[in-house]
Amino acid sequence: MSTAVSPLAPAAFPRLPALAGVRLATHACGIRYQGRTDLLLVEMDAGTTVAGVYTRSLTRSAPVDWCRAAQKQGGARVLIVNSGNANAFTGAAGIASVERTAAGAVRTFGCRPDEVFIASTGTIGIALPDDRITDALPAAAAKLSPDLWAEAARAIMTTDTFPKGATRTARIDGVTVTINGFAKGAGMIAPDMATMLSYVFTDAALPAPVLQSLLSKGCERSFNAITVDSDTSTSDTLMLFATGKAGNAPVTDPADRRLADFRAKLNDLLLDLAHQVVKDGEGATKFVEVTVTGAAGARAAKRIALAIANSPLVKTAVAGEDANWGRVVAAIGKSGEKADRDRLSIRIGGVMVARDGEVVPGYDETPVTAHMKGSHIVIEADVGVGRNRATVWTCDLTHAYIDINGSYRT
Amino acid sequence: MSTAVSPLAPAAFPRLPALAGVRLATHACGIRYQGRTDLLLVEMDAGTTVAGVYTRSLTRSAPVDWCRAAQKQGGARVLIVNSGNANAFTGAAGIASVERTAAGAVRTFGCRPDEVFIASTGTIGIALPDDRITDALPAAAAKLSPDLWAEAARAIMTTDTFPKGATRTARIDGVTVTINGFAKGAGMIAPDMATMLSYVFTDAALPAPVLQSLLSKGCERSFNAITVDSDTSTSDTLMLFATGKAGNAPVTDPADRRLADFRAKLNDLLLDLAHQVVKDGEGATKFVEVTVTGAAGARAAKRIALAIANSPLVKTAVAGEDANWGRVVAAIGKSGEKADRDRLSIRIGGVMVARDGEVVPGYDETPVTAHMKGSHIVIEADVGVGRNRATVWTCDLTHAYIDINGSYRT
Repeated sequence: MSTAVSPLAPAAFPRLPALAGVRLATHACGIRYQGRTDLLLVEMDAGTTVAGVYTRSLTRSAPVDWCRAAQKQGGARVLIVNSGNANAFTGAAGIASVERTAAGAVRTFGCRPDEVFIASTGTIGIALPDDRITDALPAAAAKLSPDLWAEAARAIMTTDTFPKGATRTARIDGVTVTINGFAKGAGMIAPDMATMLSYVFTDAALPAPVLQSLLSKGCERSFNAITVDSDTSTSDTLMLFATGKAGNAPVTDPADRRLADFRAKLNDLLLDLAHQVVKDGEGATKFVEVTVTGAAGARAAKRIALAIANSPLVKTAVAGEDANWGRVVAAIGKSGEKADRDRLSIRIGGVMVARDGEVVPGYDETPVTAHMKGSHIVIEADVGVGRNRATVWTCDLTHAYIDINGSYRT
Repeated sequence: MSTAVSPLAPAAFPRLPALAGVRLATHACGIRYQGRTDLLLVEMDAGTTVAGVYTRSLTRSAPVDWCRAAQKQGGARVLIVNSGNANAFTGAAGIASVERTAAGAVRTFGCRPDEVFIASTGTIGIALPDDRITDALPAAAAKLSPDLWAEAARAIMTTDTFPKGATRTARIDGVTVTINGFAKGAGMIAPDMATMLSYVFTDAALPAPVLQSLLSKGCERSFNAITVDSDTSTSDTLMLFATGKAGNAPVTDPADRRLADFRAKLNDLLLDLAHQVVKDGEGATKFVEVTVTGAAGARAAKRIALAIANSPLVKTAVAGEDANWGRVVAAIGKSGEKADRDRLSIRIGGVMVARDGEVVPGYDETPVTAHMKGSHIVIEADVGVGRNRATVWTCDLTHAYIDINGSYRT
């Protein structure tokens, strides 16, 4: 496993301000990792609302099942995340682990079990030693503080090479609110390690259904528009908590225009975190932006963009700094979505490479080759059949990906 | 580009017997490669019938369009295949190239244009210098011989590390017939190089609709059940020609039981060739067989099997000889097909690893680890919801794949 920090990492973890109603703590439980924290505990004030988006995997983990069920009542008091073990594909034992962890939180914080949210990230198929978590809860609770955002982002890392965080402020009806978020994931997905997890907190007062609407929509163009290796985790989780401490007037309609700024800032923060996940993609050396235009529908545009972004041949070409646009054409062709081969155009780094189904006359590869040597690669394809567009993000496929994934457990 | 022969290659190219009504020639035209043959010419006797299965890519090549149209009349006299240039995404120029090549064959052999079948394999998006082919046709025609099967398989290679051939005999209504076939492809798919091509010939007398039915069905469990990297070529082509020289009585119904032996032998030959393509998968060091049982339907079984076989995380684990069955679970989960997480079972190398949704009690990894060190890896998953099954084949994902595909054009 590589220990070097991704060359695409931001210069530093941003400064996330304290957020009224949220206290964080981290702890070293020794679940799998030694010499580092592997437990995140977050306590939220009574009245906090919650929303979540979860993996669509049919082999999803026990904690995902727990959160989906608990979320229905709309409130949250405690979040517990461990790294090193995914508690996935652990059968009845895994469900019991989650229940004991929730019971531990109930003892420590006096809340209801369905106000406790739980996630686990790490190896699949190994029983979670949940006693190490429940035994640690009182000690962790004693350390709760509003300022431990960077530590929180670090405690949930697995193969991540840097902690991922972001913050924004927004105005709701004249009141300033804060949004803080962090994420882990070195891959959209890396089932063994496993998972993308992201937690976002705000002091805005927003009912759970409004939160859910904002989060579900925001996810589509951020976390649901990134891919490292096309594999879907058993544990992917994105949650949004709102403590209500900022004191804005309640807004009950997600389409209310008083939420426009909040929605924009939330979406921006989600995209920031999602990009950081891609930039920490296993073995990544280049950040790749793929935009498809001229598609027959929005879903078609996204599917074509993902076909390009998931193509091993496109990704290895990017790794090799090779402006191999023929592979982009082939990926479009295999997407199964409507495209007009004879009206197709491709741009790389803004330079038109192919138009109307063939290479442009007198194509000069020099500026395109120069673009491929950079770290932010832009591929655009117009498929010539409609007016819909989509952008997705991925990274290149390198030797380091194989090193990391061919030898993780050994 | 690696020049070493795949460690999974068979010991030798099989001896393919002469087949009445088929003559082959190869030639070095210098289309892209130097110092090797890059043109295959096959002449077939009048009365030869034809069937074909082609890529479903929407960005398919000009020669694929040509063959699909020409095939409709049911007869074949000439096959021309070049390597080094795919004549794909070449617009109107590409169509003109195919038309000129066919016209050259008409001049040389006095047949109709729609009796000429053409394929090109190699780089996408570069105009094909078809004059090198048409100029070479008379010289190639002078070399036609019934015994050049191995040479034919070599002439159409691109990144292949070994030529791929197979032969079978079958009985139709008491008459012995021969089936010879060869293939190229170092990847189901490798759009840049590009393509899987396979040509099968028989001296049996079978009308075109019967041939087409046999070929389409046989393809489903052979060439349509292999994957190297999930990328679909712009040029994939599988054709079956029948010269009728064996003198069997005509059979007009593909379901006629007199065709049972021929069907079995044809399917066996197609599977043999398909396996050889996987064994020459770019960078392959292990041949991987994935069987899914207990699926809700046949298509579901195949989609789940392909989700496993295409998972970069499964393929890198196989490369690393790591019995990482958690990644198999995750791949099943992402397939989108029905599976019962809590009834799922997984076997690796015949050893039950997980059952009823969790690792087997007292799981001993020793025999599984020993199996992973071999070159033929068997992964079986029962998804616990029905009675349908499917088997697909793939190879591991290694550093050599990235070497080959990150630097092909440079």
